[in-house]
Amino acid sequence: MTPDPAAASAPGVLVTGAAEEEVLAAVVVALRRLCAGGAELHLRAPPVLDASVADRAGYSTSFPHLLGAVSRGGAATDLVLTPAACYHVYPLFEGRVLAAPAEVSVLADCHRQEATTERGRLRSFRMFETVRLGGAEDCLAWRDDRLDRLGHWMEALGLPAERRPANDPFWGRPGRLLASAQRADRLKWELSADVADGVRQAVVSVNHHKEHFGAAFGIRTADGEPAHTACLGVGLERLLLALHHAHGPTQERWPTHVRDALGLTRSCTN
Amino acid sequence: MTPDPAAASAPGVLVTGAAEEEVLAAVVVALRRLCAGGAELHLRAPPVLDASVADRAGYSTSFPHLLGAVSRGGAATDLVLTPAACYHVYPLFEGRVLAAPAEVSVLADCHRQEATTERGRLRSFRMFETVRLGGAEDCLAWRDDRLDRLGHWMEALGLPAERRPANDPFWGRPGRLLASAQRADRLKWELSADVADGVRQAVVSVNHHKEHFGAAFGIRTADGEPAHTACLGVGLERLLLALHHAHGPTQERWPTHVRDALGLTRSCTN
Repeated sequence: MTPDPAAASAPGVLVTGAAEEEVLAAVVVALRRLCAGGAELHLRAPPVLDASVADRAGYSTSFPHLLGAVSRGGAATDLVLTPAACYHVYPLFEGRVLAAPAEVSVLADCHRQEATTERGRLRSFRMFETVRLGGAEDCLAWRDDRLDRLGHWMEALGLPAERRPANDPFWGRPGRLLASAQRADRLKWELSADVADGVRQAVVSVNHHKEHFGAAFGIRTADGEPAHTACLGVGLERLLLALHHAHGPTQERWPTHVRDALGLTRSCTN
Repeated sequence: MTPDPAAASAPGVLVTGAAEEEVLAAVVVALRRLCAGGAELHLRAPPVLDASVADRAGYSTSFPHLLGAVSRGGAATDLVLTPAACYHVYPLFEGRVLAAPAEVSVLADCHRQEATTERGRLRSFRMFETVRLGGAEDCLAWRDDRLDRLGHWMEALGLPAERRPANDPFWGRPGRLLASAQRADRLKWELSADVADGVRQAVVSVNHHKEHFGAAFGIRTADGEPAHTACLGVGLERLLLALHHAHGPTQERWPTHVRDALGLTRSCTN
């Protein structure tokens, strides 16, 4: 009897097999084409991050309840677990003046110490992101374009997604104000899909950060102002769970148009 | 000017670009063919591991100086950073009786809180492993076969490797005894290659663990004895660094036989 990879992991932590990985590799290729056509870099970031980057980006104070830190022998180290893939991108642009908008895609294993473990609520998961850096109008238009593209793509995958304004889970009482402002300004939108009967999770998130990261990392536009940034993020395991829920666990039996949209029907010669 | 992905990371932590990822994806495909032909599962494991698995496997006491733990708000959690990919495999076989030898390949981001950061000494790195579970003779013969195969493969890649008995960096005074015994019994062999002028690092390691993991996880052979296990491990970033050192940073200019051996010359149609 073949062991079940999903059986032995800690809550919110998944081991995956070859069939799942084939789909996820195809998803990443499709997302790069769809959402990062103008990217000058396609990065793969590690699961750990310089703690000072998380501090400067404000993650440590805004989301202390979610941040996993790396310790050794009970003592803190200089590393945290990567909370979102895009935190590896901003330091690359530190101190730069952007002559034109820049775009970078990045894939990383991310970590959040979630308190619950309902289906799709993972602590360790992969995130594909594309980050846009530029002026305010450019970032806003880019974000809206990517939200449209991703919505159509999920439809093509047979995952009719609910599109809604959202907020990040900022911590504590000041966090509630930040969350309200984020939602009121329509800075964050999510595309949600069912990952199980009655369990709907955000699969896609698009965000306009305004000058938050530009100011934190000294990134400017040609006019000397802090750059604005926007990003799109796709939770790869959540997308996989949504595909399984919609089309069943055996990808060879998924509808042809879904397999086509993922490039699963292409062939390689050696 | 395109930002340099390697520039902004913490010591021993690498962000990689598309060119590097293309090589590493080819390496994993090649390694699965070469070293895991009989595997019933090809797994991809997350960068975090149930801490109790590391405890039961003896890692926490044998390598406390290398083990990274996940904390939140200064308090320990139930997770550690994956110290080696194979720790995700043994729990899958917990309590089983093996009717025949079993083989599983696994790929994971691993973490070790190394004290130094010379070239190739990473804290966060990817490891490809194949694990064999069976009788003592089977595991020993399998390990020696894989050591030969990997030695020939590295030669084909233009990386003439030094083959030498080795030991794990067990901690403290009792650790020195364990290390001596491991070396005297020739349980661990490494294939080392230059990753920079005068810097040689182990790229491949093959190990016979005897009944260590079989006893820890209650895995038995048909005769009721604790199963023996063996594994091979390949450090993917180190292999990449060795390829860069031998053939230069631009893979399109690598010798054709090297690109052939990695399958980089194959083509895909969509």
